[in-house]
Amino acid sequence: MRPSGRTPDQMRSIEMIPGFSAHAEGSCLVKFGQTHVLVTASVEERVPPWLRGGGKGWVTAEYGMLPRATHTRGSREAAKGKQSGRTQEIQRLIGRSLRAVTDLTLLGERQITLDCDVIQADGGTRTAAISGAWVALRLAIDTIHKATPLAGDPLATQVAAISCGVYNGTPVLDLDYAEDSAAGTDANFVLTNKAGIVEVQGTAEGEPFDEETLLRLLRLARIGCNQVFAAQLQAVGR
Amino acid sequence: MRPSGRTPDQMRSIEMIPGFSAHAEGSCLVKFGQTHVLVTASVEERVPPWLRGGGKGWVTAEYGMLPRATHTRGSREAAKGKQSGRTQEIQRLIGRSLRAVTDLTLLGERQITLDCDVIQADGGTRTAAISGAWVALRLAIDTIHKATPLAGDPLATQVAAISCGVYNGTPVLDLDYAEDSAAGTDANFVLTNKAGIVEVQGTAEGEPFDEETLLRLLRLARIGCNQVFAAQLQAVGR
Amino acid sequence: MRPSGRTPDQMRSIEMIPGFSAHAEGSCLVKFGQTHVLVTASVEERVPPWLRGGGKGWVTAEYGMLPRATHTRGSREAAKGKQSGRTQEIQRLIGRSLRAVTDLTLLGERQITLDCDVIQADGGTRTAAISGAWVALRLAIDTIHKATPLAGDPLATQVAAISCGVYNGTPVLDLDYAEDSAAGTDANFVLTNKAGIVEVQGTAEGEPFDEETLLRLLRLARIGCNQVFAAQLQAVGR
Amino acid sequence: MRPSGRTPDQMRSIEMIPGFSAHAEGSCLVKFGQTHVLVTASVEERVPPWLRGGGKGWVTAEYGMLPRATHTRGSREAAKGKQSGRTQEIQRLIGRSLRAVTDLTLLGERQITLDCDVIQADGGTRTAAISGAWVALRLAIDTIHKATPLAGDPLATQVAAISCGVYNGTPVLDLDYAEDSAAGTDANFVLTNKAGIVEVQGTAEGEPFDEETLLRLLRLARIGCNQVFAAQLQAVGR
Amino acid sequence: MRPSGRTPDQMRSIEMIPGFSAHAEGSCLVKFGQTHVLVTASVEERVPPWLRGGGKGWVTAEYGMLPRATHTRGSREAAKGKQSGRTQEIQRLIGRSLRAVTDLTLLGERQITLDCDVIQADGGTRTAAISGAWVALRLAIDTIHKATPLAGDPLATQVAAISCGVYNGTPVLDLDYAEDSAAGTDANFVLTNKAGIVEVQGTAEGEPFDEETLLRLLRLARIGCNQVFAAQLQAVGR
Amino acid sequence: MRPSGRTPDQMRSIEMIPGFSAHAEGSCLVKFGQTHVLVTASVEERVPPWLRGGGKGWVTAEYGMLPRATHTRGSREAAKGKQSGRTQEIQRLIGRSLRAVTDLTLLGERQITLDCDVIQADGGTRTAAISGAWVALRLAIDTIHKATPLAGDPLATQVAAISCGVYNGTPVLDLDYAEDSAAGTDANFVLTNKAGIVEVQGTAEGEPFDEETLLRLLRLARIGCNQVFAAQLQAVGR
Repeated sequence: MRPSGRTPDQMRSIEMIPGFSAHAEGSCLVKFGQTHVLVTASVEERVPPWLRGGGKGWVTAEYGMLPRATHTRGSREAAKGKQSGRTQEIQRLIGRSLRAVTDLTLLGERQITLDCDVIQADGGTRTAAISGAWVALRLAIDTIHKATPLAGDPLATQVAAISCGVYNGTPVLDLDYAEDSAAGTDANFVLTNKAGIVEVQGTAEGEPFDEETLLRLLRLARIGCNQVFAAQLQAVGR
Repeated sequence: MRPSGRTPDQMRSIEMIPGFSAHAEGSCLVKFGQTHVLVTASVEERVPPWLRGGGKGWVTAEYGMLPRATHTRGSREAAKGKQSGRTQEIQRLIGRSLRAVTDLTLLGERQITLDCDVIQADGGTRTAAISGAWVALRLAIDTIHKATPLAGDPLATQVAAISCGVYNGTPVLDLDYAEDSAAGTDANFVLTNKAGIVEVQGTAEGEPFDEETLLRLLRLARIGCNQVFAAQLQAVGR
Repeated sequence: MRPSGRTPDQMRSIEMIPGFSAHAEGSCLVKFGQTHVLVTASVEERVPPWLRGGGKGWVTAEYGMLPRATHTRGSREAAKGKQSGRTQEIQRLIGRSLRAVTDLTLLGERQITLDCDVIQADGGTRTAAISGAWVALRLAIDTIHKATPLAGDPLATQVAAISCGVYNGTPVLDLDYAEDSAAGTDANFVLTNKAGIVEVQGTAEGEPFDEETLLRLLRLARIGCNQVFAAQLQAVGR
Repeated sequence: MRPSGRTPDQMRSIEMIPGFSAHAEGSCLVKFGQTHVLVTASVEERVPPWLRGGGKGWVTAEYGMLPRATHTRGSREAAKGKQSGRTQEIQRLIGRSLRAVTDLTLLGERQITLDCDVIQADGGTRTAAISGAWVALRLAIDTIHKATPLAGDPLATQVAAISCGVYNGTPVLDLDYAEDSAAGTDANFVLTNKAGIVEVQGTAEGEPFDEETLLRLLRLARIGCNQVFAAQLQAVGR
Repeated sequence: MRPSGRTPDQMRSIEMIPGFSAHAEGSCLVKFGQTHVLVTASVEERVPPWLRGGGKGWVTAEYGMLPRATHTRGSREAAKGKQSGRTQEIQRLIGRSLRAVTDLTLLGERQITLDCDVIQADGGTRTAAISGAWVALRLAIDTIHKATPLAGDPLATQVAAISCGVYNGTPVLDLDYAEDSAAGTDANFVLTNKAGIVEVQGTAEGEPFDEETLLRLLRLARIGCNQVFAAQLQAVGR
Repeated sequence: MRPSGRTPDQMRSIEMIPGFSAHAEGSCLVKFGQTHVLVTASVEERVPPWLRGGGKGWVTAEYGMLPRATHTRGSREAAKGKQSGRTQEIQRLIGRSLRAVTDLTLLGERQITLDCDVIQADGGTRTAAISGAWVALRLAIDTIHKATPLAGDPLATQVAAISCGVYNGTPVLDLDYAEDSAAGTDANFVLTNKAGIVEVQGTAEGEPFDEETLLRLLRLARIGCNQVFAAQLQAVGR
């Protein structure tokens, strides 16, 4: 039995509030149960040095967590003077995932920064961030397009992410913190709405796992991402 | 005329949502108009080294701003590797202000950290933070008291803060961003509900000001803080 | 009774040695009793990026304290790898205070950096620094004017600063370290020789204070600053 | 055709030189073709604070690359003052992978640090590092056991890693730099000699990939790791 | 001809003002012509971790330069966030030099920190610092001895330093900035009053030099150090 | 007797493996007994800002040590976030030494960076680094010359370095770690093959030394460097 009483393939309730931030070109407060992440998309009309003059744009991400988003207070990274390895790993993953579905040439020579800040954490913050980032990015691109029509849609594909794992010997979908901290195997999947895999990260926390388990978790992830895709569309009004 | 159409002694609407965070011992999302600050109070049963064994507690604060809380995106302090002078100045002010109304001996040998994170900024973030921090601190002390009754209330006095300034030659209450960036004189007041002044910080941005102006701004601040005191009481259910 | 035997409105002896440094365009060793601060003014014929091409100049300040300027040795900020919040707060205050009396357009597109280094500390280092910085700045502007006549005097107004506080229940002028560490209320005032207030920073270290006290401290500050203004004129030979 | 002329399921030549370092308790210079990584295992008779007194040991890893290990010189992380996100991600992966096959209770309250330094890089440095780290760890545990017999072998299982990818549309084994920089999909697999999966990290660099591709790459990885397992046994003389 | 008109073996005027600092256990403002260095000696009744419990003391040094000690302003190391290689090299040299003449066992388990801060620079700051540090250390040890008599004098030998160099083809004593920046060879000598060499650092800035030159510079250094020894004795009143 | 059984003027066996690195324009693995240093020379067709447009080139060095190059593991400088004073001192010395024999005008407006990484340490790493750096630099200049003929040879002179010291009262050549850690006096000499001295650094670890000892050590250094010069020529095939 899962601590939350959910069935193995049952996700937590998803909520996506578009336009949560007054200033950002695109934004979304995404909630996977008690995990709440605010994503803002900021557009700048310039790209990093290595891209200048090439006509292509860039999408990048930064990730942070409020010190008391978690059960016990963590120290503030700005005060410690550096971002942890975990933070850097996550923000690199978010950036790669969104770039995988963005046509940077159609975007044109501008950069969009996706700031993903965890307001409250209950497991799955990186996958919630990716899922909400798509909404913020979609809205930001719509904002750009309204002001300066683009030649085509740079974001024709949806991307979403979910974590699955083996809890008490059973593969389950959308781990919350209680499950995540006890799971034997933990895997994050980043999938597209066109049946593609963008990223798979599976880790054996205890015993190594087998191919069969990997495939089972992937199938659960598809179930979950399909629900996220629907929530994304609803949030952006399509 | 003020950009917002407010009268000189009119505050923005105040909203204080207690218990906003699921994990913190006390928390408050405070809104002064479009300025939104989340304050969490985290209790630890240990104090900084210089206080150990003395039987007294400690209250401290940290301050941060989400990169896109502002009109244009600011860089993330955790990524830059250090907190700005402005951030440090503000968090020192918040800590001093709350300690001024806390009886650290009654609190006992424990530390409460007030994390003030600006979700959205429209001027007056430090004064909103102080005002909301009182609510979070009040709730955290109530949480402590419920678990381990204290000998007396360490927080018998309320503290609140507000910024005033001279806009277009007229002293006005509760500056928003449009006013703040154009104000000739800008003053932050931290006041108690017992008519005391905890902190005054007045700065001439352009022309130096005179004693009369300082007094006029102080009087406006009293008007504003009285409204904040009422909102605080309502938020903590007293 | 004050530890030094001074009357409540009596300042420590002031000494200002202009041209203390052989290399700087302007310099002053300022002594408020046992507090000794060396201020140098360095002129550069270029301004920070955000001012370039606008024809206006800039005045900025940096503050430091020798490790053994104080009763017990403090650690060296260069060795720790960062400036404390206190240091940053002070150097921002010094910069603001001097800019408040400088006509940056008359100064022209050049920057003057005021380095304020505490050689010996006995309370009031920031206010001594501001007071001495005016002398160093005055001399640096004279140096510029001799080489390249300016259209007008960018520094037509004097600025000085002094700390006041409530010691043993009595408002007193120019706190030394013994008083400062015991004072109930501590206020720094930055005033001009034309009766203007540039900055007020009043803090209740213990009990909150009232409006009457604030005004009383302000009046003491005027008495003190008038003496500093006279010493400044003497130091620059006017 | 692969740039190196290898068949799709052909690895580069593997060389593992045990005891390369004179000082370390265990060491191995591992070569996957032109990728050369020196791994040393250092034993300390103390564990990190959070493990003290629990009777369990710890295995951790650090990763570095000589500035000119690569085609063009990279800047030195020690000179830049911080480790990149990539470095931190890799060293976390190496540590997790080796811990997955180590019985920390049998190891006893001591820490083994695996330093993986890339002397020369031609793709696949992280997987070579993991593969060589097993040899260094094996030798270090043997050294401990000789001095102080352990109750059982803490390292009864082998772990190895290999990267696979889709190059020019074809799944291939053991990517070199020329392939890695052009690959459409890139996946690192960490496998045990008992058919278990410790870690899967698959990333679509261009087009998303499908389940079939993931499985194909996993099968190639098994072929490669089996060769690495044999080389490991030979290196440690078993 | 030397820019200053001095003869090749003529030092600049030396001035050593003992007790310059009100707070330090020992201090000295040392002037070699226009090079002015303030040295303070701070005594702590504890030693670094690796010496604890061994009954021996420690002497260490830190070095700094005020930003405008030089002809053009240098950036402040505290603001840059790190000490330069030059600073670290110099403070290591000062520490080694003073430890070479200190009996750490007689000193007992306490640490003396020598802070050497350059108030004004005109060449030879490190050698002036070492020479003045002996005076500050002597006075600090006298202070300790007065409070807690030591079994013997830990500082029975004097140490001094001077820079020599080849200027316009002629070996000269005590380089000032004009000579130092043009010298072909530059050598710093740290000598004792008992004819011993503590440190030699000779560097060819242009052409390599020969053994004869090295010896000639050493002889000049003896001439100079003898004058410094006399000044030291006078400063400490012996 | 020396721990290694060598005679006082006997060097350890020298080995210099040119072209050790596949990617660098010049490289050398230099071994002085059990001290192994890998030096790579990287050519960039641009110089530091202060040299741009002047037609002159630059040679600089960086130094590092693998964490377990030594008997006990040292912490990784990249992880600590800064280079130690020792590291900076050594890399400045290497850079100066190689520039002393390089005609920067003949080199042309390009920079060569010499990365000296200690793979294994047994005393004398800085002198081995300098000696091997000449080989790497020679090979890199040959590489440049082959691609773009230079007007003349920028490296007409050889430079080498060796450490000498007083061990058990006897001056000895080429200290290994066992001697270095026990030596009373330690001196590093950087010499040219044309009888010139580039750098002398002599330090009394215990008792100060005298002129006679300095000269004796210098003579030993000449003996040692002559052997290094021969090994260098052999390594570069001249």
